[in-house]
Amino acid sequence: MDTVISSARQTVVIGPDHPFVIIGERINPTGRKVLTAQMIDRNMSMVCRDARRQVEAQAHVLDVNAGVPVDGVEPEILRLAIEAVQQTVDAPISIDSSVVEALEAGLAVYEGKALVNSVTYEEERLEKVLPLVRKYGAAVVGVANDDSGISNEPQERLRIAKLIVERAADHGIPAQDVVIDPLALTVSADDNAALITLETMRLIRENLGVNMTCGASNISFGLPWRPTVNAAFLSMAIAAGLTSAITNPLEIEIRRTIYAADLLMGRDAYAGNLIQAFRSGRRTATSH
Amino acid sequence: MDTVISSARQTVVIGPDHPFVIIGERINPTGRKVLTAQMIDRNMSMVCRDARRQVEAQAHVLDVNAGVPVDGVEPEILRLAIEAVQQTVDAPISIDSSVVEALEAGLAVYEGKALVNSVTYEEERLEKVLPLVRKYGAAVVGVANDDSGISNEPQERLRIAKLIVERAADHGIPAQDVVIDPLALTVSADDNAALITLETMRLIRENLGVNMTCGASNISFGLPWRPTVNAAFLSMAIAAGLTSAITNPLEIEIRRTIYAADLLMGRDAYAGNLIQAFRSGRRTATSH
Repeated sequence: MDTVISSARQTVVIGPDHPFVIIGERINPTGRKVLTAQMIDRNMSMVCRDARRQVEAQAHVLDVNAGVPVDGVEPEILRLAIEAVQQTVDAPISIDSSVVEALEAGLAVYEGKALVNSVTYEEERLEKVLPLVRKYGAAVVGVANDDSGISNEPQERLRIAKLIVERAADHGIPAQDVVIDPLALTVSADDNAALITLETMRLIRENLGVNMTCGASNISFGLPWRPTVNAAFLSMAIAAGLTSAITNPLEIEIRRTIYAADLLMGRDAYAGNLIQAFRSGRRTATSH
Repeated sequence: MDTVISSARQTVVIGPDHPFVIIGERINPTGRKVLTAQMIDRNMSMVCRDARRQVEAQAHVLDVNAGVPVDGVEPEILRLAIEAVQQTVDAPISIDSSVVEALEAGLAVYEGKALVNSVTYEEERLEKVLPLVRKYGAAVVGVANDDSGISNEPQERLRIAKLIVERAADHGIPAQDVVIDPLALTVSADDNAALITLETMRLIRENLGVNMTCGASNISFGLPWRPTVNAAFLSMAIAAGLTSAITNPLEIEIRRTIYAADLLMGRDAYAGNLIQAFRSGRRTATSH
């Protein structure tokens, strides 16, 4: 099953027979003081820089989040950020907010088929977000939790994912436009966190067949060697069926690992993409 | 199921509930001119150096191979190499040869329970190697191919693995002393090589339950970014059930990835081993 998203000038396909899709996570003020201050000032220069850098580092899609800690301003800032990003790069955008009004403000100015990040299986959110997704013809990330929180049971996460896909269908959104987030929690808080997520991925691949994405960097929170832990997790997750991830393409270890994982999954004939990335990396290194 | 191997002073357990076992691959003259020349001269100084370095780099077991391109000398050189290694380090040894007389010469001087590397499902080899394994109370690597070569069908590799385990039992060797090599071939020669190996691993884990090892570096032969490709493959393989690998612990990316993979598999409570390795790496870096 293929999920197609697009900007005015570029189309990206998420699917098991396509190269893994990197959704760049950097345009997000959480934990970033300078970006937060600029966003509050409606200054989009760092947003544009992060957009360019991530696309140069092979991000296929850019997540844009404007969740600054100021009441009521997120819709306007998210709109400005999306306008700035789509003037700067060609990559499609994942519009990321927990505020429904911000999602709507972003969708209203977005030129193309966006990925809306995200909806959970919570009644109020479902009935506000899904009509918006339908209205703008977007795709949507469905996070596998409900009002009762996040289950530690892969079968329960699968059940919630199924319910989200069904509810989306009720709103006229086809399964290929629902990308499930099976939820990667922090392994330093729970030894079984990665095992639960990987088993959920296998169940979703086998039973639902929809595309998946996840915030892969959560897994290593609080640990040393974070890029290595993230890269090892992404390798396992790609083998378990993950078809895209919200991650940091500026981490060279993660970027290279994704090329390697695509090759190992038989999705890079004659290692063409990996060898091309290797050569272009050498050229970049030489030209600096 | 646990496979126990030992030297005179150290015991190593290979098993799904234990940290992944690294079998250091460096003591092998293939492609190494200086080591080849020294081995032919019966000079074991590089063998001892490689033994020390690999143990310092957290190899749990050392593979020792003396396959120099000179007729008839391998039994003597393998014996000398094993004597040298067991005088230098405490790690148990994997005695690696395609020459039965060399395996016997190595086993005769080895103090402990060795891992014999390897037997295939080829009649002549089975009937020579298995009696030796039994006689010396060793464990053995069983490679999942027969006289007809290496199958591309995971089910066929599983079938051969089963036959090896059964034949070992006929010789009085229990299943826990058979470590199956599901065979990792080169992905640049066949796009599906890794997928076939990973599926074989899952089948063996589910249907046989024995431990597994493989020469993980084969997978990346001829490619750029080999440590990254090997690390990605090892992550996937560990999630698929691989419990040990013959690999290069001197590659820091591989070593760190194995710590990360153990953690993600729930085998490193509170990330204790990973954090300890991180701290000891920093101490080493500082002291140089």
